[in-house]
Amino acid sequence: MGNRAVVYQGPGRVAVQDIDYPGYEMKDGPGVNKMNVGRRTPHGVILKTVTTNICGSDQHMVRGRTTAPEGLVLGHEITGEVVETGSDVEFVKVGDIVSVPFNIACGRCRNCKEGKTGVCLNVNPDRPGSAYGYVDMGGWVGGQAEYVMVPYADWNLLRFPDRDQALEKILDLTMLSDIFPTGYHGCVSAGVTTGSTVYIAGAGPVGLAAATSAFLLGAAVVIVGDLNEERLAQARSFGCETVNVSRGEPADQVQQILGPTAAAIGQPLVDCAVDAVGFEARGHGQDAQVEKPATVLNSLMDLTRAGGAIGVPGLYVTGDPGGVDDAAKVGSLSLRLGLGWAKSHSFVTGQCPVMKYHHGLMMAILHDRVQIAKNVNATPIPLDQAPQGYLEFDQGAARKYVIDPHGMVRR
Amino acid sequence: MGNRAVVYQGPGRVAVQDIDYPGYEMKDGPGVNKMNVGRRTPHGVILKTVTTNICGSDQHMVRGRTTAPEGLVLGHEITGEVVETGSDVEFVKVGDIVSVPFNIACGRCRNCKEGKTGVCLNVNPDRPGSAYGYVDMGGWVGGQAEYVMVPYADWNLLRFPDRDQALEKILDLTMLSDIFPTGYHGCVSAGVTTGSTVYIAGAGPVGLAAATSAFLLGAAVVIVGDLNEERLAQARSFGCETVNVSRGEPADQVQQILGPTAAAIGQPLVDCAVDAVGFEARGHGQDAQVEKPATVLNSLMDLTRAGGAIGVPGLYVTGDPGGVDDAAKVGSLSLRLGLGWAKSHSFVTGQCPVMKYHHGLMMAILHDRVQIAKNVNATPIPLDQAPQGYLEFDQGAARKYVIDPHGMVRR
Amino acid sequence: MGNRAVVYQGPGRVAVQDIDYPGYEMKDGPGVNKMNVGRRTPHGVILKTVTTNICGSDQHMVRGRTTAPEGLVLGHEITGEVVETGSDVEFVKVGDIVSVPFNIACGRCRNCKEGKTGVCLNVNPDRPGSAYGYVDMGGWVGGQAEYVMVPYADWNLLRFPDRDQALEKILDLTMLSDIFPTGYHGCVSAGVTTGSTVYIAGAGPVGLAAATSAFLLGAAVVIVGDLNEERLAQARSFGCETVNVSRGEPADQVQQILGPTAAAIGQPLVDCAVDAVGFEARGHGQDAQVEKPATVLNSLMDLTRAGGAIGVPGLYVTGDPGGVDDAAKVGSLSLRLGLGWAKSHSFVTGQCPVMKYHHGLMMAILHDRVQIAKNVNATPIPLDQAPQGYLEFDQGAARKYVIDPHGMVRR
Amino acid sequence: MGNRAVVYQGPGRVAVQDIDYPGYEMKDGPGVNKMNVGRRTPHGVILKTVTTNICGSDQHMVRGRTTAPEGLVLGHEITGEVVETGSDVEFVKVGDIVSVPFNIACGRCRNCKEGKTGVCLNVNPDRPGSAYGYVDMGGWVGGQAEYVMVPYADWNLLRFPDRDQALEKILDLTMLSDIFPTGYHGCVSAGVTTGSTVYIAGAGPVGLAAATSAFLLGAAVVIVGDLNEERLAQARSFGCETVNVSRGEPADQVQQILGPTAAAIGQPLVDCAVDAVGFEARGHGQDAQVEKPATVLNSLMDLTRAGGAIGVPGLYVTGDPGGVDDAAKVGSLSLRLGLGWAKSHSFVTGQCPVMKYHHGLMMAILHDRVQIAKNVNATPIPLDQAPQGYLEFDQGAARKYVIDPHGMVRR
Repeated sequence: MGNRAVVYQGPGRVAVQDIDYPGYEMKDGPGVNKMNVGRRTPHGVILKTVTTNICGSDQHMVRGRTTAPEGLVLGHEITGEVVETGSDVEFVKVGDIVSVPFNIACGRCRNCKEGKTGVCLNVNPDRPGSAYGYVDMGGWVGGQAEYVMVPYADWNLLRFPDRDQALEKILDLTMLSDIFPTGYHGCVSAGVTTGSTVYIAGAGPVGLAAATSAFLLGAAVVIVGDLNEERLAQARSFGCETVNVSRGEPADQVQQILGPTAAAIGQPLVDCAVDAVGFEARGHGQDAQVEKPATVLNSLMDLTRAGGAIGVPGLYVTGDPGGVDDAAKVGSLSLRLGLGWAKSHSFVTGQCPVMKYHHGLMMAILHDRVQIAKNVNATPIPLDQAPQGYLEFDQGAARKYVIDPHGMVRR
Repeated sequence: MGNRAVVYQGPGRVAVQDIDYPGYEMKDGPGVNKMNVGRRTPHGVILKTVTTNICGSDQHMVRGRTTAPEGLVLGHEITGEVVETGSDVEFVKVGDIVSVPFNIACGRCRNCKEGKTGVCLNVNPDRPGSAYGYVDMGGWVGGQAEYVMVPYADWNLLRFPDRDQALEKILDLTMLSDIFPTGYHGCVSAGVTTGSTVYIAGAGPVGLAAATSAFLLGAAVVIVGDLNEERLAQARSFGCETVNVSRGEPADQVQQILGPTAAAIGQPLVDCAVDAVGFEARGHGQDAQVEKPATVLNSLMDLTRAGGAIGVPGLYVTGDPGGVDDAAKVGSLSLRLGLGWAKSHSFVTGQCPVMKYHHGLMMAILHDRVQIAKNVNATPIPLDQAPQGYLEFDQGAARKYVIDPHGMVRR
Repeated sequence: MGNRAVVYQGPGRVAVQDIDYPGYEMKDGPGVNKMNVGRRTPHGVILKTVTTNICGSDQHMVRGRTTAPEGLVLGHEITGEVVETGSDVEFVKVGDIVSVPFNIACGRCRNCKEGKTGVCLNVNPDRPGSAYGYVDMGGWVGGQAEYVMVPYADWNLLRFPDRDQALEKILDLTMLSDIFPTGYHGCVSAGVTTGSTVYIAGAGPVGLAAATSAFLLGAAVVIVGDLNEERLAQARSFGCETVNVSRGEPADQVQQILGPTAAAIGQPLVDCAVDAVGFEARGHGQDAQVEKPATVLNSLMDLTRAGGAIGVPGLYVTGDPGGVDDAAKVGSLSLRLGLGWAKSHSFVTGQCPVMKYHHGLMMAILHDRVQIAKNVNATPIPLDQAPQGYLEFDQGAARKYVIDPHGMVRR
Repeated sequence: MGNRAVVYQGPGRVAVQDIDYPGYEMKDGPGVNKMNVGRRTPHGVILKTVTTNICGSDQHMVRGRTTAPEGLVLGHEITGEVVETGSDVEFVKVGDIVSVPFNIACGRCRNCKEGKTGVCLNVNPDRPGSAYGYVDMGGWVGGQAEYVMVPYADWNLLRFPDRDQALEKILDLTMLSDIFPTGYHGCVSAGVTTGSTVYIAGAGPVGLAAATSAFLLGAAVVIVGDLNEERLAQARSFGCETVNVSRGEPADQVQQILGPTAAAIGQPLVDCAVDAVGFEARGHGQDAQVEKPATVLNSLMDLTRAGGAIGVPGLYVTGDPGGVDDAAKVGSLSLRLGLGWAKSHSFVTGQCPVMKYHHGLMMAILHDRVQIAKNVNATPIPLDQAPQGYLEFDQGAARKYVIDPHGMVRR
């Protein structure tokens, strides 16, 4: 059986290529950790990919900001139909439509047992935590493909209760593999709850998912900041306030938006902030075209109230060959921690442990409590148009591209 | 200065009478604990009552189901304008429009410092916990009056940021003194969160507030059960599913509503349940006209999934002169705890500590995230019509009566 | 290969018998759910039992208080050496010394993924939750045997880091399979933390484990109540205060113990209470020889402060053929919920989800932070003496009997 | 009535001077915010200081690392006897022996009501949060004096239940005003619980209090790192493992200490880490004599396991005139956040909200569950020897100096 996939071909280049049909044993290849070669996965299933989204974190690789090797099969946002199950799979069945958490987790190590599936100890010989189709993550083949193998399937997969219902809402459900839980985790980490005022840095898909999550969690005011007016308009389309950070530090604009209500209760700042930008941040105001990796976190300490919290789902890396300076190249940032300390801020970082959240978010989607596809402007494209999708997304399109390899998405 | 108030005159009877204008010292009177007589309250403020609601728990007294003495001034759901401040009040100002939590709390005892304001140790000599205008609660004068004194004002009061905005949304904001936080607390206690399936027993104002809260907390499915079709229709008006318990045990109907989705994930039961009925519960099915105080809690254990939780904001009492049997007279119920234990249920009981929630819920109201007034069918009435309001409410009207002593509510 | 085990032979009778050596498929037999017959368990391992303890909940069966069938192989407190691994086991290795949580859990259902392994959905066709060698729990063969099969081994098992160290501390570590986590869970559920005052109802092994846990959690005062003076003496041996409930309601004695300290802070009651007795409770005072199933819970509401919490690890059942009345026969209790409600008590019931706690408790044992074996008076006995152990334990011996089928326990 | 106090006289100099006897109105003076001048405090009490400790954060001022003005009365660690109460004080009584949380809090603002007393909104016009005798904290007169005024006394003060018992344990209880809760908060923030492995950076009094707290919370292994061998010996005196960071990065030494146990479970790193050093950190290894403000936090990210947490009670400032470079002067640090992010670390910063913890820690002291005075080597000195105490402490004495102005400490 054939298989076609999106492959990284070097900085700025991705292409759709033929790759092997997946099996239950890891093979050597670009980016595969040698210790994982030959690893057997009878606990896995083969999925026919229903949808697989292009992620902002894929762009870090494609822009050449990582050590990703050429030939890497991309894609960690996967929703699929089970077409075959390994010998150790007991509860997932052929025909199930399932969401795949982007973090690969074994369900058998201490971290998984504690619910910390973003730092599973058994799937990546390099360090805790893994993902499909990603540099330094162990070498699991990516899912921007017609077919993909998902290990530890009984543990990892979220089954949708009804096939027809799932396909009908597939553009919403496809966001459960990464950005919806990731944005939600950012908000939960920032303490968003009923009545909160929230600032989200970044109006890309994760930022918009965080804003959507903030409303779902009951936030009173959701303010989104970005440099890209088209993305800010997308945020406004579902009730967010917006701040264009090219006009200067967001703290001032935030205070104007919060206005008399916040002043009257003595705190002209937000309760909660989410960094949905990460290490490729640019400056604010006149520095808006310059990469300044600490800009976002420093501004969040500025605009968050004393006693508030900051969620950091945006990716920060341990090594960045394209970093702006020596510090950035090893993942160091010049942070105003003194300011955060004075305000008793807390910070929660790291990959979202998707399994903590995907059941609840699925239920919210299935019962029409949230319109995540609309809010992030989900845009289905055929597999062959993936390279074009990468390009447009990199240019700042206010869209979330959803690859539809088998034409299963209704339009 | 004069003052008029709603006064309990014996089983089935309330009337509007002249009472004293409030001061900063507690006086002897019906229901006043002797140890509180002469207590000075320089930390208090005098409020001109903007709104004060009739509560289901007032009905327990009026129906003669308590030892409430004749002459008791009723009313613990109070929103007001500060017209005078005691000498020790530092931050609340004359002219502020404020919400009064129904629990009176000192802000100086161990329980208050832990946020457990529903069981303050310093306001009621009989036992922890207090409320305005309520039997066995220390003797604080009720607020179904033109004017009322609120002690420990800097601690207890929630200030609205803007007077005009507050008056415009007053029918929503008036619910912050009790039923909205109480319903919300029931849901929080039951673990309601994004995507939960929830059953609320009771479609009176607290039940409807709990259902409203469940949606605000992100619930996927909210099912409300009651015997009263008019109240169930009110629940359906804002998206709830409903169960008429006069047709039999709710568990079966709940399973039908949850249907295939729940079955497909192996749990045809709700995640969370809230008892918004309390000790005057009636039976289900053919017992629907008979008081059966354990009915609600037993049915909640039946219809809640293993691992779920049950919030119990509905009032259970330590003594009930009108109880159906000797056990009920001392507040004992025959509970199927074996069933709850087998399902690892947890139970959270008691008065809602309003101060934990009122700021966030206020923000949600002010920013139009929730329509609590509409959902509970808030119905303003002049002070003189309070007796009529009590009567209609007791007869099962699907309304929340809001007394408006000074004609400040816009219609 | 042979296998010998402790088998229930009817009310009051247990015997050591030959049974089958375990395999990776469930066979029909006494107490095996028909739907589990033929179930394959390639995810399981075979353990050579190092230690397996007699539990108070075994006594419920042996006393004929359940519907346990004759021929049931008993034993759910198991520590063993892995002698064989099923084909799907990836991380547990032959030679590992491991602790087995008494709750059998699949690690693949929604409840397991949420950490609620006490109510796993996939191991017991009758209802959520399971255990080895227990009535109505699916039919998994008990572990009071020379060898036993443990399913879902990578998920369930806790591996000890060093074999020699493990065998040296085996009388402590053997308590990790049930009573130590169960007592600890009771305390956590009751909110025990640094400086708490705690009342534990019951000085049997679970009660003593709860008292040990209370100290480990930092409790200031730990009071244990029982009718059995020998067990109370055991509690005093490690610093507990004690109350003999045959002398009357414990609340008075608790107040005397807490004395001036508690009075000075206005609350002569404990912060936290744990029910380590369950449904076979006897009365207090002159009713001490009479079974009164609601006695313990009602007294806990009496002696716990307003705002406190009550953990209920003691077993309550859905059916009790030997119950004292019709209510008890179906697991109903006459509870003074009105009192608990007035004090805003919360209640957490159900099986302890052992996996939440066993790693941390193991670390505390291995680093000598706790002496659980000494505190519960762990008493090793050979397999052949198990019937005698059952008898003595039933008669109230202040001992925890640890069966040592292979003579591996050093004395 | 007279009053004598420890006064800052410029870099490196403190002296005992006569100051005014306290009253219920704030007066102008060194460090007093103009907006606080004339502020009335009828809610305050006058304390006769029983003990008042020298704190490491006082040293930052005395070393000239802040903008503290000459003439500032020092001291924020206060235990006293109430000798007079303001007109608004209701529950604290003359004769009470009380502990004063170092954070001044109003008990009436949103943050206080949420338990965030370290960032009270009403006591410091400059920014949220305040303390006695501290630069930029509003100008509340310090308590290293014979007498001191404590505002909002009913809210802030912790009353000891018995005077004699309190005076007997005064060297332990005096640690409740700051370092014991601060160390405990660091551990709680870092997730320390039963069985945790913990690294504490810094063996000064806060570090030793954190280590003490870690044991109290049930930690299995507590490792303390410092450059000062005398302080490390103090840590070893109560069971800590130690690491001398002048020998190099602590991560290697930590792995050796954790050894086979940790390796066998796949994680040769600690679960939890606490920064008890703050902004005046020095380098590790050959940089041990050089100030390197980011050293501690970066090493904690290195030696904490993936999924672990880091508590940061150590002080970081918004401005440091003596900072090693321009970044340090504004409180910026070059942090390896990329590393922390890859490990999903969380960080909790800020002043400890003492009121959250002091009741429980008091109970632990009064019931002999913890020996904080011994562990931090509490050393009482007369008021006149305070300057000498400052000097010795600055030179690295492994002592916690407790000023005893009235000779009330028994030796």
